[in-house]
This record gives sequence, C-alpha cells and structure tokens, in this order.
Amino acid sequence: MTAYRLHYFPESGNSYKLALMLTLCGQEFEPVWTDFGGGVTRTVEWREKVNEMGEIPVLEDSGVRLTQTAPILLRLADRYGRFRGGDDGERFEVLRWLFWDNHKLSSYMATYRFLRAFTASPDPHVLAFLRNRLDDCLRIVDRHLGDRLFVVGDRPTVADLSMIAYLSFPKEESGYDLAAAYPAVHAWSGRIAALPNWRAPYGLLPGQRLRSYVQ
Amino acid sequence: MTAYRLHYFPESGNSYKLALMLTLCGQEFEPVWTDFGGGVTRTVEWREKVNEMGEIPVLEDSGVRLTQTAPILLRLADRYGRFRGGDDGERFEVLRWLFWDNHKLSSYMATYRFLRAFTASPDPHVLAFLRNRLDDCLRIVDRHLGDRLFVVGDRPTVADLSMIAYLSFPKEESGYDLAAAYPAVHAWSGRIAALPNWRAPYGLLPGQRLRSYVQ
Repeated sequence: MTAYRLHYFPESGNSYKLALMLTLCGQEFEPVWTDFGGGVTRTVEWREKVNEMGEIPVLEDSGVRLTQTAPILLRLADRYGRFRGGDDGERFEVLRWLFWDNHKLSSYMATYRFLRAFTASPDPHVLAFLRNRLDDCLRIVDRHLGDRLFVVGDRPTVADLSMIAYLSFPKEESGYDLAAAYPAVHAWSGRIAALPNWRAPYGLLPGQRLRSYVQ
Repeated sequence: MTAYRLHYFPESGNSYKLALMLTLCGQEFEPVWTDFGGGVTRTVEWREKVNEMGEIPVLEDSGVRLTQTAPILLRLADRYGRFRGGDDGERFEVLRWLFWDNHKLSSYMATYRFLRAFTASPDPHVLAFLRNRLDDCLRIVDRHLGDRLFVVGDRPTVADLSMIAYLSFPKEESGYDLAAAYPAVHAWSGRIAALPNWRAPYGLLPGQRLRSYVQ
C-alpha cells in the first residue's frame, strides 16, 4: 500500500500534474479512477464531503484529502526538495508562473480542449474567444522560453510541470501543433519529456476515457 | 517619497488587491495611473521592459518591479505579519483559495465585467458562457461563507482580499446584485468593508476611467 491515493480522470491535466510530480520524485501512488464524465464532481455528496470547489484531482496523503493542484505541488516540492527553485528569488518566480498558469495558460487550454474535444456541438463563439486568449498565452511562453531551458532558472521546477501538463496530451485534442506554431514551447516540452522517469499522461493515468467528439 | 509605487488602472481589481493590502497594513504607496485603455500593456516595450506577461498591476518595491498579484500579496503578508493565516494548516488553505480565486472567481469576474461594462458590443455567447461559470463560483463562495466569518480561519487573510476585490466595484458594472442573489457573500463583503482603514476601489485608485458602455 502506498501513502498516496490520487483521485483522477485520464483527461485531467491537473491530475497529470500531480501524477507526474510524484513519479519524477520517485514516489508511487494508487490511481483511483473517478467518474467525472458521469458527473460525480457535480453531486452534493462530492461537494460536501470531498471538495467544496467541485474539482478533481484529490490527493489522499496518508489519509488526509488535499485539493487544489498548485498548493499540493508546492507541498510535494518542499517535502522532497525537488522542483522548487534554488533560492528565494527563484521561488518567487516559481509562484509567479504558477499563478499565471492557473489564471491563464492551464485555465484556457483546459477549457478550450475540453469543449472542443469532449463536448458535442461546442459554441464556436466561445471556442474562438478562448483560442484567441490561448494564443496570447502561448506567445508569452514561446517568447519566455526562446533563450532559456526551463521556466525559472536552469533546472525544471513545479512551474514547468504545471505549465506543460495540458500541452502534453495528443495534439488532436487541442488542435494545436506546437512544433509548427510555437517552436520554443515544443523544444521545452522535449526537455521535460527527457527527464528521468517521465511518462506521458495516458500512460500514467489510464482507465475509461471520456467520449471524444474529435475525429 | 514612499517605498512603494503601484502602476494601476482604476478598474483593475488586481490593482485594488495590492492597494487595499498596503492600505490595511498601514503602508503608503504612490499610485501611478497607467493607460491600459490606450493599450500600453500590449506594446512591445511594456512586454520587454516591464512585464512579459503583459499584465497590470506592477508594484515597485524600493525600485524592484514585481508583477503577478497573488505572490506579491503573500510577500507583503509575510513582511508585515498580517493577513497570512495563523498556522501551516491555515496557510495551505490560504494558498488553496488564492489559486482557486485566480483560476476561477477573479478570472471569470474580471473578464465578464470587462467585456460587459467596458467593451462595445460584447459577444452575448461569450457573456453567457462566462456568467454561467461565474454563478457556479459565487455559489461555492456563498456556501463556504454560510457558516463562517472569513474564507480561512476566523480572521481575514489575503484570500479574502483577493476574492473580494472584483466584487467590490459598483454593481452596475457586473450586473450582479450580491445582496439579492448571494446573501452570505454580501454579508462577508460588509465585514471586509468594516476593517480599519478599508477603502472602496475608486476611492483608493482614482484617475481617468475607461469608457463605460453600461447605462
């Protein structure tokens, strides 16, 4: 039995952030597939007993249920002394990019990809709105990574793991060909994938998938 | 001369978060009005020299330019020993709500209100999409605050200041009548407004306003 149990669904980039962090830190976890597609996170029971914010993932850490991915990443970084930035200045930068990612990059990509790939008849107005914002985000990351190896300092941190997660799924889901459109982002994703023990999302978090509407 | 200079525009809830935090901590700052409406944050110069993320506010702290509101709030909370939560458990909760706020509540409210009140002919599909998500957020906060005074623990923290900011502007801008629709949120906003030295957004950050399209 491992100390960690991760409640996830396979398409969740936030679940993948925690699964990847634990794996890169050499930690095992028990993956607990959750019926997101069936609406479990919208039930009164889930909101009252598991997570009032109604979100997945949930990480059980020796029996204590933790929610909200970024604070959990920071806690694991402190616990294992990995991916947290080298000094106070770098740690401020890590926080800065983590908040930006939650507000912008992961947020827009998660919503855009979910609507586009996993809902029937998404509203084209909403897709265009989100894609426009997402392109602005990706331009910012591409420019930032144009002359550096990782998001903060010269080693990967939880900011990289957070920002790369939703970009790590098959390109058919988002419709974004990073290699063609955002070369610095694409090169950085290759550096992340070369880290020891790295695993792709659906390899790390298997199980029944949401119905995809993308051909 | 004060140690702090805050680059802001009056309608920016993120600018208000920092202005309110400094004021509640008894700190003065020099407000530097910024021509957001004129597009200054979209210029190459702003992105290269001030903030690559293209965002306002920017806080100059003894000459050092800091960006991204939430990490700055956390730094100020540590510096003044105020609004940071009482112990490690509370500080994890503060982080948790801060990230949720940046991802969801402040994000959706900022975008919804900006499109609705300060752009000509906003797309009604996009407004409906954002309003639906915002209502889900406000229900979560209303339920959370139904049986407690503040977001975390029994005293206000930077999580409260972050979450209240975009809800503190005149209701004509967002079209949300919190008193009628979200009574626990409304009661909580009254408790925040009763804190010593509290100031409303446009009182704290005056200056030329964006053109409003709301009558």
